[in-house]
Amino acid sequence: MAVSARMRRSLEGSSWIRRMFEAGAQLAAVHGRDRICDFSLGNPDVEPPAAFQAVLEAVVREPIAHKHGYMPNAGYPEVRAAVAAHLSTEMGVKLGAEDVVMSCGAGGGLNAALKALLDPGDEVIASVPYFVEYGSYADNHGGKLVLAPAREDFDLDVAAIEARIGPRTAAVIVNSPNNPTGRVYPEGTIRDLGAMLAAASRRVGRTVYLVSDEPYRHIVYAGLRVPSVFTAYPHCIAVTSHSKDLSLPGERIGCVAVHPEAEDAAQVVAAIVVATRVLGFVNAPALMQRVTARLQGLSVDPELYRARRDRLFDALTGMGYAATLPEGAFYLFPKAPGGDDLAFVKALQDELVLAVPGRGFGAPGYFRLAYCVDMAVIERSLEGFRRAIGRFAAGA
Amino acid sequence: MAVSARMRRSLEGSSWIRRMFEAGAQLAAVHGRDRICDFSLGNPDVEPPAAFQAVLEAVVREPIAHKHGYMPNAGYPEVRAAVAAHLSTEMGVKLGAEDVVMSCGAGGGLNAALKALLDPGDEVIASVPYFVEYGSYADNHGGKLVLAPAREDFDLDVAAIEARIGPRTAAVIVNSPNNPTGRVYPEGTIRDLGAMLAAASRRVGRTVYLVSDEPYRHIVYAGLRVPSVFTAYPHCIAVTSHSKDLSLPGERIGCVAVHPEAEDAAQVVAAIVVATRVLGFVNAPALMQRVTARLQGLSVDPELYRARRDRLFDALTGMGYAATLPEGAFYLFPKAPGGDDLAFVKALQDELVLAVPGRGFGAPGYFRLAYCVDMAVIERSLEGFRRAIGRFAAGA
Repeated sequence: MAVSARMRRSLEGSSWIRRMFEAGAQLAAVHGRDRICDFSLGNPDVEPPAAFQAVLEAVVREPIAHKHGYMPNAGYPEVRAAVAAHLSTEMGVKLGAEDVVMSCGAGGGLNAALKALLDPGDEVIASVPYFVEYGSYADNHGGKLVLAPAREDFDLDVAAIEARIGPRTAAVIVNSPNNPTGRVYPEGTIRDLGAMLAAASRRVGRTVYLVSDEPYRHIVYAGLRVPSVFTAYPHCIAVTSHSKDLSLPGERIGCVAVHPEAEDAAQVVAAIVVATRVLGFVNAPALMQRVTARLQGLSVDPELYRARRDRLFDALTGMGYAATLPEGAFYLFPKAPGGDDLAFVKALQDELVLAVPGRGFGAPGYFRLAYCVDMAVIERSLEGFRRAIGRFAAGA
Repeated sequence: MAVSARMRRSLEGSSWIRRMFEAGAQLAAVHGRDRICDFSLGNPDVEPPAAFQAVLEAVVREPIAHKHGYMPNAGYPEVRAAVAAHLSTEMGVKLGAEDVVMSCGAGGGLNAALKALLDPGDEVIASVPYFVEYGSYADNHGGKLVLAPAREDFDLDVAAIEARIGPRTAAVIVNSPNNPTGRVYPEGTIRDLGAMLAAASRRVGRTVYLVSDEPYRHIVYAGLRVPSVFTAYPHCIAVTSHSKDLSLPGERIGCVAVHPEAEDAAQVVAAIVVATRVLGFVNAPALMQRVTARLQGLSVDPELYRARRDRLFDALTGMGYAATLPEGAFYLFPKAPGGDDLAFVKALQDELVLAVPGRGFGAPGYFRLAYCVDMAVIERSLEGFRRAIGRFAAGA
């Protein structure tokens, strides 16, 4: 058998998101793509802001020598400086170009950061429900993901995280706005988290890093602002991308920022740069570095997603679904009627509605709807949602 | 200490190429960038072919929905099909879209392939001199690089590789045209390698995969053709990129092709796709997939590099340097006069000439010159090369 045992396990346990993608392809083949209501993928349907196209065309035409060549592995110095200037405002801490490393999306940035921090056997704590590939990201570098439950309202349970911190804990990873719940952790929670991490680091005699995965930072509703982890705790690495705010997930452009007062900050940055190189990313794509540097702070209009959230949330809760109102990102994470998320997701498939079971995020009994789809898809799906919950209410 | 012990070792042993880059920056600060003759980096100075710019502008202007969104992790089906059609001709084996995975450059492709193949403790054999990051690529996935010496003329020593194959050998990695020697392994060597691998796989009771790292395939001189590994051995993965043939190293676009008759070929492809996702690459950059799909088989003119090779090789051997004539890529790997590559590279730095010591490729006693530089740089460097060898001849 040529494939490694480790990868065979990954293939067998292939992510639920991927299984839904495949189920969707089968349903589409039978019923036609147009009839499927696909809420399974976090692939923004909103086009990039108009300014993106203008800047892209301008950069493509600019006569720059070696425009597509290697640059320093960390990124173009002027791009890092532009990103640092923007993040300084956003994070409330003054960052310089030397604190920023350009990355191949947030996924590439998280892997480089974890490779910089983890020795074999080290632990990374995540709050459940969670983006399930964190487990692979930790495992890639010999680490182990340790899961802490969130609170019933999907806020972080700081005490539950604290209880899991020990001498092998290298990092805690948080994701706000959250995938799959849409929750934005409030200022008070982030402050408590920072204070807890400072105390826990003293307790275990090791600085526990906070890794903040923030690709949805700009997709928040009703003027909400995502609190900065940098003002709550110095030993922080923020990872973000333009996959969601500029709708560029296929271009793999993002960045990693290390708090300048973090322990060994300069060495952590150097390690992230080396990790970026030796993992084979080498550098973030050259052209998109130049383009996005000129679009810092720009975002698609979150109101587009807010309108969909309102329609879907109101309709579903009106039918009897139990759900927490998302404050950002574009995910709704309702309870599965009947309690069995696999059975319920199957019932939705019978209605040609695709969702991902909560166990794909470590949370059986829920299901995730990615509402980065046209409003017409939401409208078309509602009758299916009504019939599906009806089947479980009738069977109860 | 926040940085992992493993990464601290990487930082301390940071690659010689990088150290030379830093030494060059210091020299440039003192003497001015214009006076430095920098042969340390394999960053093509030749601009992409004119057709690249035309296709890039066309693709950028095309009204395609979700042009920058996620596609299947393996790449756009039509891009995979175009690459497969081209590789079928080049490799002499009929490939379909399903045999090809688009990758973030060759570095990304090699990491995904090795993650698909390696379990902890597995071994990968490479021929010395070698691109030193192969060691990190194997280590990233729990593997161990085992080194086999090349022959005196830098051809593969098939018997030396054979002697190192055991039950933990998952793969042999070859790189032709070779970095750092410029050698193109001849047809007969590749045939012998294939036959040896078939016999050795039977001997150890495990199919040893051949991973062929081929980013320089189109940079060969005097009409030479790089022999196909696919016609010599079925259990092959070819990894390539457009970093060198289209001069796009900063854009991170490449691909992985699995021989359709390889053991468990379909599962190996599936594992490479999952590896691409969980390593955080997710997919090859979207825009460059579309652009390069239309440029398959196109390359910068290798004669540009051939003219430089001729000038540099003739001048250096005329001064008394001992070197093997490169047949491809853009590297010359002469013996270090005096035998101490560190001392000799230091002497070249005194002449404002930057080279990489052979120990950066596992081969002390040599040094590497990357001649992807303007002819004027070569001309300007010659007096320095003459003085440097003179110092060692005088001291001998």
